[in-house]
This record gives sequence, structure tokens and C-alpha cells, in this order.
Amino acid sequence: MSETHLSLEQVEALARGCLMANGCDQANAEAVAATVTAAERDGAASHGLFRIPGYVAALKSGKVNGLAKPKAEDLAPATLRMDGDGGFAPLAHRLSRPLLAERARAQGLAALGIVNVHHFSALWVEVEALAADGLVAFACTCYTPSVAPAGSRQAFFGTNPIAFGWPRGDGQPPLVFDQATAAMARGEVMIAARDGRELPPGVGLGPDGRPTTDPKAVLEGVLLPFGGYKGSAIAMMVELLAAGLIGEGFSFEAARYDNKDGGPPRGGEFMLAIDPARLGDKEGWLDHAEGFFAGLTALDGVRLPGDRRYANRALTPSQGVQVPKTLHDKIVALSAL
Amino acid sequence: MSETHLSLEQVEALARGCLMANGCDQANAEAVAATVTAAERDGAASHGLFRIPGYVAALKSGKVNGLAKPKAEDLAPATLRMDGDGGFAPLAHRLSRPLLAERARAQGLAALGIVNVHHFSALWVEVEALAADGLVAFACTCYTPSVAPAGSRQAFFGTNPIAFGWPRGDGQPPLVFDQATAAMARGEVMIAARDGRELPPGVGLGPDGRPTTDPKAVLEGVLLPFGGYKGSAIAMMVELLAAGLIGEGFSFEAARYDNKDGGPPRGGEFMLAIDPARLGDKEGWLDHAEGFFAGLTALDGVRLPGDRRYANRALTPSQGVQVPKTLHDKIVALSAL
Repeated sequence: MSETHLSLEQVEALARGCLMANGCDQANAEAVAATVTAAERDGAASHGLFRIPGYVAALKSGKVNGLAKPKAEDLAPATLRMDGDGGFAPLAHRLSRPLLAERARAQGLAALGIVNVHHFSALWVEVEALAADGLVAFACTCYTPSVAPAGSRQAFFGTNPIAFGWPRGDGQPPLVFDQATAAMARGEVMIAARDGRELPPGVGLGPDGRPTTDPKAVLEGVLLPFGGYKGSAIAMMVELLAAGLIGEGFSFEAARYDNKDGGPPRGGEFMLAIDPARLGDKEGWLDHAEGFFAGLTALDGVRLPGDRRYANRALTPSQGVQVPKTLHDKIVALSAL
Repeated sequence: MSETHLSLEQVEALARGCLMANGCDQANAEAVAATVTAAERDGAASHGLFRIPGYVAALKSGKVNGLAKPKAEDLAPATLRMDGDGGFAPLAHRLSRPLLAERARAQGLAALGIVNVHHFSALWVEVEALAADGLVAFACTCYTPSVAPAGSRQAFFGTNPIAFGWPRGDGQPPLVFDQATAAMARGEVMIAARDGRELPPGVGLGPDGRPTTDPKAVLEGVLLPFGGYKGSAIAMMVELLAAGLIGEGFSFEAARYDNKDGGPPRGGEFMLAIDPARLGDKEGWLDHAEGFFAGLTALDGVRLPGDRRYANRALTPSQGVQVPKTLHDKIVALSAL
């Protein structure tokens, strides 16, 4: 596969320029480009430039508002709602994050419901930002049915990722995990299909309802939850938090309004931020958890979530990234005004 | 196996009497007996009378304070701490639940850290009580290392259960799940060992670090997390919430102070309660979620978590429960003053 070398600055400019050429204003384009660049920086290709054609399709079809002006609303002393004005999620995140953090510090913890947005970016970007700001953070989202609840063969849940962040000491980046409650994220299955790689068993069923390791068959069929009925229960919890609780559509409802332009359907997001100094161990919590991480990483075979992303991040700002030439060419073509 | 038939009133009296004969005052004995009776009522034998000998051993050894007077402390407008005074968890729960509920309604959501307690009861009892009171509830706890983090062969995490509750409409009992982040709860492995049943594959490793389906070998060895590295990440999150965040011991620390009397080691619990009317869908949240449950249960092969418990609950108040005669005789003997 022929590849194009880009610096992270070039990734950002390419993404931003392409989005602005297709109907985003500067604020929306910059917010989306920042998450795309963060993904490329961390070697998370499935949320990087790979998604730009989908973003553009969603703008072109009119499904997504490229000029969105998200507005926050107070609901209670510790709860907030952000209406994303029909735009992509990143600008709504960028504008609501400081409000959520301020509330969490004032009340001990705070929750945020983001509605009326289109999700196409990874949750870890926002969770990491809150954790880097000293807060414990949790986020989950749902949209588009692609996972069969345990026991069934029919898509009903989204891939419903959950992300968690914990601040670290000594200038280390936060501990962050971001994982689909599907056995594999849809983006990873798409990358496997693009690259012609077989899936491990247990990831999904084909359109005939039978288990398969062919990523193209799974994309036409249905994913399975991770960890059987326990993972399925967690996927259900995500639906209830990111849709039922905050008043957005469940995955099965979002599907009804999706125009299948390849861009992200509308979906809600639930976020929680907790001030670790307000839960009972004001002075000790940071060092106490560092002792836990030291014990955990001393075990043979254990690696902390996010370690691979941080290893990539140490290199890409100076070395740049490799992008498939076909993808680069496609984005350049989409950027022509 | 010879069995003794008991009414739920007899279960409660047997549990309460045995605890009071072994050093619990009435308030502590009643709170523990209520959770034991709730477990028997719902057919959850692993948290029922089966645990009474362990409770008694912990009282006799002096590890647990049977006369505990738990005290609540305000930490922030939306956060609370409950110091359990070295007792069993149920009385701390009983006294802190109304405080947590009141805070959640006032602030939109609230968090509670329960410290200095000994955990031996199921989380669903408390989560269900909050959800029956109209709140969305989440709880998790950790103590005693018995689960090997993904990639390792050494116990480091507890079985670290997580529980979630959602209020239902039309007088239905709440949607509640309570599941270990271990592939199987330790209590279930203990029941399998008692009954001589083999485990499904993937539950644990023997003392030699190799996979086994022998429950006795797993009890001497180590459990595995459910769902591989994703379940392992969730088990880690539980440690950070139920220990690091609230200032209680991590599982690997709790083990240091456990006297191995068969009773529960000290451990912390993190609870969250959210007022669903304060997250943005004040009027519609209940019906909206009922539509989701209707769609979910219409799928072939899907059953809601808790359905089996509620089916048992429909019968046991009139029919009573069957308890192994050896267990009943043992508790009667332990109850002799």
C-alpha cells in the first residue's frame, strides 16, 4: 500500500481545509481537525484522516450543520446540558468542557448531557483533557444499531464506547481507556476490511446470522458485545445513560433518522467529571493511586491502557505519520473549492 | 442433598438471631439480616444464609465491629462520605441511602464513598432501593485480590462487582444488574465447589497458573476478568473509584490486613445516584426508556437482567425457600448463646 508522509501540522491543515471547503466554519473545522490530528498523533488511524470523507459526506448531504453554535444550559447545580445545534461533537465538547470542570470542582462532581450532535470522534480525547486538568472523568455515547444484545442475532445496541480517565502524578499523561462495548470497534473492523485482514473469532455475525471472521461480512451483519451477557449489560447501561437519561435517541431510534451518507448519525453523550480532592482523600489520592499503578505494572504481562498511544505520541510530533496515498489523494480532491 | 424448608420470616429471624448471638447489636443485625433475606427471597443463594458462618467468624475474631455506629460526613454539595465504624456494610448503607438520595435530588446527582466497612452482601440490594426511589444508581466495590489482570497470572484485582439500577414505570420493579468484573463471582465459584459442579472454561487458573474448570483449584488459584483486557480495564476502574478516589484500600492492600477468618475483608464502596428528571428530559425519560425496553425484549433470545430474581421473588414470600440442612444446622449451632 503506497503511503504519503505528513507532519502533524500538515494533518491538521489538511483536515481543517477540507472541512472548511465543505461547509464548516472555522470554529467547527478547527475542533474536528484537532480530534483527527490527536488520533493520527497517537497512531489511532481509525479515528484519524480515515474519517474525513465521512465528515464531508455528512456535510454535503445537509445532515450535519457545519456552522453549529452549541449552547449550554444549566439543569441543576451539578448537571448541565449542551445542545450541539446539529453539528459535529468536537465543538460542543470544546465549549462545554470548561463548564463541566468548573461545576465538578464547585459541587464535588458534575454530569453533562450532550445532545443534538453527530459523533464521529474518539471519546478518549475529551476524557484525557478533563483528566489532564486534574479530574476523574467518564464518558459514553451511543448511536446506530450495530451490536446484537447477548442471546440475539439482531443489531440493537450501538458499539457504545465507554471511556475513563484518571490524573497521574509527576507530569505523566493521564491513565485513559476508551473501549467499545462491542467485541471490536466498528472503526477497527472497517480498517481490517480496508486492509484485507481477518478478524479474531467472536467479533460478529454475518448477514446470515452466523459467526464469521470476514470483516466485510460483519460490517453487513452484526457485531457482538464483548464478554457475553456482562458486556451486553454494560452496553445497555450506555444506552440508558447516553440516550434515556439525557433525552437523546437510543441507537435503534438514531437509525431511523440516518440518511446513510456514510457520515455519523446523531447521538447523545453522557459525561461525568469528579474532583478527586472532594471524595474523602484530599491530600493522599494521587500518591495512593500511583502505588496501585506501580503494583499493577510490576506484574508480568500487564500494560496500562493508553501506553501504545503515548508511545506513538512521543514520536509523531517530530517524525510525522504515514497515511495511505489513496486516502490522502481523496481528501485533497474533496478539498478543492 | 437434604434440605430444610424455611419461610422468609424464618430466614430473617435465623440470620438476625445468629448475628445477635455473636456480637451484633440489633441495628447491625437487622441490616445484615435484611440483605441475607433479600438474597434468599430472590434465589441468590451465594449471598444468602450461606454467608452467615463467615459473618460470625468475622465477629468472633474481632475483625468486624458488631456494634458499629456509622457516621456520615459532608464533603462537598454533591459528595458524601460514610464511615462505617468497622462494621458490616449494610447498616452504613441503610443510614446513608436517604442522605445520598436527598443530595441527588437537590444537586442533580451525588456521589457517596463508604469506607471502613466489611463487604459481604450483594450490591443490587442497595442499587435497587435507590432505583425504587426513582433514582438512577451505580455502585462498585473492591476488596481482596482474587482476579489476575489481563495478561498476568497473579491475583491483584478483587472480583470488583458493578451494579446499575434504572427506575421502571407502571409499578414494575427497577431494572437492575449486579455483576462481578471477574468471569464469575467468587460466591458462585464457592457454591459450585460446595455442590461439586465443574466451571465453564475461562473462569480461572489453578494454583499452578494453568486454566482449569475445577472450582476448588480456582479458589486456591486465581479468577480471570470477564471479557479479556476490556473487562480488566473495567476492574481497574472499579479499584480507582472504590479505593483510590474515596480513600479506602485497594484490593492488594486489603489483603494485607485480612486475618483470613473466612469473613469479609475491609473494603470501600463508591455509589452514584442521579435524578433522571434533572438531566434534560424531565417529562419524557421514563416512557422513553420503556420504549427501549420494549424493543429490547421483543428480540429473540433476550432477557432483562434481574428477571430471574424477580421471578423467584414472586414465589418465595408465599412458598418459602429450601436451604441445605447442613447449613441450617450449622447456623442453629452458631446461634446457641
